[in-house]
Amino acid sequence: MPETFDVGLLGHGTVGSAFAELLDARTEQIETTTGLRPRLSGVLTRSRGDFDEILAASDLIVEVMGGVDPAREYVLRALRAGKHVVTANKQLLSRHGEELWAAAREHGVQLRFEASVGGVVPVIRVLQETLAAAHIDRVTGIVNGTTNFILSEMARTGEAFSSALAEAQRLGYAEADPTDDVNGADAAAKMAILARLAFDTPVHLDQVSYEGIEQITPDDLEYAREFGLGLKLIGTAERIGHPTNEGRSGISVRVHPAFLYPGHPLASVAGPFNAVTIESPAITEITISGPGAGGPQTASAVLGDVISAMIPPASTPETSQRLPVVTDVASAFYLHLDVDDEPGVLAQVAAALGAHGVSVKSVVQKGLGDQARLVMVLHRVPERQFMAALDEIADLGFMRSRPRFIRVIEEEFGV
Amino acid sequence: MPETFDVGLLGHGTVGSAFAELLDARTEQIETTTGLRPRLSGVLTRSRGDFDEILAASDLIVEVMGGVDPAREYVLRALRAGKHVVTANKQLLSRHGEELWAAAREHGVQLRFEASVGGVVPVIRVLQETLAAAHIDRVTGIVNGTTNFILSEMARTGEAFSSALAEAQRLGYAEADPTDDVNGADAAAKMAILARLAFDTPVHLDQVSYEGIEQITPDDLEYAREFGLGLKLIGTAERIGHPTNEGRSGISVRVHPAFLYPGHPLASVAGPFNAVTIESPAITEITISGPGAGGPQTASAVLGDVISAMIPPASTPETSQRLPVVTDVASAFYLHLDVDDEPGVLAQVAAALGAHGVSVKSVVQKGLGDQARLVMVLHRVPERQFMAALDEIADLGFMRSRPRFIRVIEEEFGV
Repeated sequence: MPETFDVGLLGHGTVGSAFAELLDARTEQIETTTGLRPRLSGVLTRSRGDFDEILAASDLIVEVMGGVDPAREYVLRALRAGKHVVTANKQLLSRHGEELWAAAREHGVQLRFEASVGGVVPVIRVLQETLAAAHIDRVTGIVNGTTNFILSEMARTGEAFSSALAEAQRLGYAEADPTDDVNGADAAAKMAILARLAFDTPVHLDQVSYEGIEQITPDDLEYAREFGLGLKLIGTAERIGHPTNEGRSGISVRVHPAFLYPGHPLASVAGPFNAVTIESPAITEITISGPGAGGPQTASAVLGDVISAMIPPASTPETSQRLPVVTDVASAFYLHLDVDDEPGVLAQVAAALGAHGVSVKSVVQKGLGDQARLVMVLHRVPERQFMAALDEIADLGFMRSRPRFIRVIEEEFGV
Repeated sequence: MPETFDVGLLGHGTVGSAFAELLDARTEQIETTTGLRPRLSGVLTRSRGDFDEILAASDLIVEVMGGVDPAREYVLRALRAGKHVVTANKQLLSRHGEELWAAAREHGVQLRFEASVGGVVPVIRVLQETLAAAHIDRVTGIVNGTTNFILSEMARTGEAFSSALAEAQRLGYAEADPTDDVNGADAAAKMAILARLAFDTPVHLDQVSYEGIEQITPDDLEYAREFGLGLKLIGTAERIGHPTNEGRSGISVRVHPAFLYPGHPLASVAGPFNAVTIESPAITEITISGPGAGGPQTASAVLGDVISAMIPPASTPETSQRLPVVTDVASAFYLHLDVDDEPGVLAQVAAALGAHGVSVKSVVQKGLGDQARLVMVLHRVPERQFMAALDEIADLGFMRSRPRFIRVIEEEFGV
């Protein structure tokens, strides 16, 4: 029997229940990876469970209840009892982070909080580990998927804020009470946490100025198109040492709607996505993007933190799989043929393709004197079949040169 | 005096010398972060240094000499001597990874290799830590900056492969001997490493099929535009369980040029950049992008690994800074005014802006009956000055409603 690793769960809403499910589904894999078998030692909700009992029975506490009270007290008591804590609670960390991080240091335990910012985007880990001791100039983020979805919808359909919000609610991208999302408060809490890590200085939520997107009109988005700009709710945390700031050196942390020039790394981030760009002289910039927080995504970030707390760093475990490496895969293809310009060419090429089960998606044919160029995009097909058709085509009498092809990666992979 | 942490450096080329410089520049910050003072204990090059002496004097070995021999022997000996190793050597890991990882496990030391794949893109850490125990379906990557630059240039200018390559060499994005970059071999080694981590199964470089971009013509890129596709050198590592594969289950790892549909997360990655998309049911997808490997970028990835080896995980150190949080920053603005359609309006608005040092970048004016709409983009200015101008404009007699504004994030931040 392997040793167990007991996880106490505080909160059983969307994230909590998704976490319990994911932990259950991944138990075997986690045991293979870490050598320890994770086990849910108890669940605390408003109506059931006893915090003291759960604490005593756990190696690690997952806090996904949200809010400041009583989450703060529970997290502090867990850290002081020598238990690791994983939390998704941005409100708690942006208000009481220093107190909690100090408690974790004092008691030699881990306090992990990847799930508090950015959905599946692992920006906390990148700031704390990849860029540990790097000098960071600026962190720019789309850290609220609800508002990014609403702005994308307004840009796409031309509809007003209120209808785009209703659509977001219908699709589950906005809460019944969307206030903290649309007014920028949620993004402000996340930017406070990112600024703290990026600049190694205490940042409290109260120091972050924020504006929301409630005032944005379809007109604004139309003018944005005219000026060639994209409109996003942007969080910025940056060092300020500019002459216009009268030489004062410090940081600025703020959230507001902003137009982005088309080449900005965040300009193409559309829909309910999150993305963060980190700028530092040593690395130029890193951008990380992914879906914003839904229950399963947040649960996955929580689980990543739990597993990190279970294992010593940077061991690459022995492989547990012996998967065959397959070489005959299926692809869509672009096919480029230089041929004599004579009747029946397209028919013969199509027949050769058809004989091997290859079907044509689109064709462009161009005459070039007595020669023609036939360029096709073909539907996905096992490569072996395509290559057989290609051999047949290469032997056709009207071919002027060797056929050329390039694979096409399609929107639907169909694996 | 703080305790020291001794780092032995094998290799002093572009990456090695950039690493030595960076370590020197960041010594104080690393000491603050880790409590240990890093120190270069010795440097081994072809002409100087003794491996045994350096090994004995080091807590950790950085291997950036490249190639398989003698790097393999040095890394093995370091691990067996109980020293942590950080390497950037994709050739070594894609051929002898299992042997090295086994040695690290056996001797209880860390073997870190973020710098071996993806330039500054922290894909190794995300796969090993954030997504530890996640079920991954596919990893798709642009993992060679040289070829991505060449293809971007060919698309931009319409020029041939050979001239784009010459341009890449002139700008330092391609080596004097670019063979392994342009033929796909470099990308294949990186994909072997990513596949090993993603699918928890041994993958050797020899199992990765690859094609390069030498055969791509300006025509291909022109047709790509016609079909609305982007052309990239793509590495793919994916699980294969498709019916067209006759039901065989396994993985496929391959590198080839491919067209991408416009919404693909990698389609907008242009120039000498790297980017990797990881797909997993729990998270949908994460995309990470950043500049490809140059000396300073690779050195930064190496240093991130060194620092990770120095500290226990997930401690959030006490802040060492007390930076003021500044609220009066500078921004560019979009300004939206509904005004009476009468002579002199634009002049008075421009005068009010000018009086506060705000200058206009572009203007669109539209008549709407007896009313007009004036939309402007303004150059970057301290927000205080803009707000003062705004107050003045709001009081002008021809204003039909409250002026509205949105900040604009520009290409040049000027901080």
